[in-house]
Amino acid sequence: MKLLTVAQLQTRVYAQKETNLSLLDGLFCQAKDAGADMICLPEMFSCPYETPNFPVYAEPSGGPSWQTLSRLAKRYQVYLSAGSVPESDEAGNVYNTAYVFDREGRQIAKHRKVHLFDIDVKGGQRFKESDTLTAGDKSTVFDTEFGPMGLCICYDFRFPELARRMVLDGAQVILVPAAFNMTTGPAHWEILFRSRAVDNQVFTFGTAPARDMDASYHSWGHSIAVSPWGTVLNQMEAEEGMQITSIDLDEVEQVREQLPLLKHRMADL
Amino acid sequence: MKLLTVAQLQTRVYAQKETNLSLLDGLFCQAKDAGADMICLPEMFSCPYETPNFPVYAEPSGGPSWQTLSRLAKRYQVYLSAGSVPESDEAGNVYNTAYVFDREGRQIAKHRKVHLFDIDVKGGQRFKESDTLTAGDKSTVFDTEFGPMGLCICYDFRFPELARRMVLDGAQVILVPAAFNMTTGPAHWEILFRSRAVDNQVFTFGTAPARDMDASYHSWGHSIAVSPWGTVLNQMEAEEGMQITSIDLDEVEQVREQLPLLKHRMADL
Repeated sequence: MKLLTVAQLQTRVYAQKETNLSLLDGLFCQAKDAGADMICLPEMFSCPYETPNFPVYAEPSGGPSWQTLSRLAKRYQVYLSAGSVPESDEAGNVYNTAYVFDREGRQIAKHRKVHLFDIDVKGGQRFKESDTLTAGDKSTVFDTEFGPMGLCICYDFRFPELARRMVLDGAQVILVPAAFNMTTGPAHWEILFRSRAVDNQVFTFGTAPARDMDASYHSWGHSIAVSPWGTVLNQMEAEEGMQITSIDLDEVEQVREQLPLLKHRMADL
Repeated sequence: MKLLTVAQLQTRVYAQKETNLSLLDGLFCQAKDAGADMICLPEMFSCPYETPNFPVYAEPSGGPSWQTLSRLAKRYQVYLSAGSVPESDEAGNVYNTAYVFDREGRQIAKHRKVHLFDIDVKGGQRFKESDTLTAGDKSTVFDTEFGPMGLCICYDFRFPELARRMVLDGAQVILVPAAFNMTTGPAHWEILFRSRAVDNQVFTFGTAPARDMDASYHSWGHSIAVSPWGTVLNQMEAEEGMQITSIDLDEVEQVREQLPLLKHRMADL
């Protein structure tokens, strides 16, 4: 048994960056009380999801938001998949970046969103991240006391190649801070988390912001946890809240033994 | 508009190879009356799905079964995705092979199952194709008057790499003769056809044998047709029957324009 309890915080995103950060302390306290080993936050949890905001809200790695998140992980002695935030570099680029901290508040992973979300669905959603964001170019896997985990951000998860890359690099759990919308959410959110889990025989966790109909971007919410057999273990609705899921990472090996997909995979076709 | 009407025949598999073949004429007549441009048959539609049967039922390419199938395609002037049959080669190997014929009865595709189904689910299904079958090693795409299509067999479809390969080679429709069982069927059948469609923005068609509880292998049935947006257009239950689905292949381009996944794909990560 390799038990891990994950708390997914489906938070509302307020216009003030600091408001979003200051609310975390109370939520982390509740999550810790509920037995959380790991806390997951949504994509852009501290920056309303609009392209003009990203450069304005951006901070360098190690900046004030990063410091707050690191301190929170240490204070509550939890792993923290700190959603994503806009990150600026010295060249003036801005990235959609996901940090992970360990129980001592040390950064153990940093993923820059590789696939920027540029979409135009007829009669549906329009959004162009590349207006203000620069893309990352790396797949991200990191070690924890529970086993190796992969990390990507929202639209990244649309691409089976990236999930497969993480799994070939050892990931047994894939964490995805995300914010699907009211067009793609109902159509594709659950099926993506289930199918990546089934194809790769990993646990998948998608953590989204709560829906706010006063915001310009309407998040689908529905933070989700899926088993390596593709079973939905937990799924929220659209409202703010916390979802606690306990998993046993030994299940990854059990499923892979029964249905040896990764062994049967033909690398060169 | 590029309209294509597909008839999927969810047939029962009889022990006599010839029985299965001789029943096709009447079914093709009905399918043609229903407007079919293309007829799809199930995996191993003329050979009960048990590993000892494959060498016994096997014929070389161009053998009697092949001739019957070619004649039927020509007689009814339809494209025929002729499920799959055991194929023997001169070296004595046996393959799980899918042929496709055009309206003149000419073979336009041949796919040998690449991923052999060797599974052992605790308390569930056990099966080992590799006991008697040899694996193919190629991805298969072929041209039709409607556009290019991909072809693979059952367990092949578990591997996102193969579907992606077909789509990068131009496939707008993926045809999958298959026979999921009572363990993997309820868990994964629909999600696989939907997720491959969503990830690759193609139509997917899975055609399975009807369930026969007197057979040693119990097919899940549920022959299915899915749109490039991941919508289930049609799905059968377990019984024998025919399913007619009309699609417009222009939908592939429309979906790819709105959500340009294939354009956004990063080939090298």
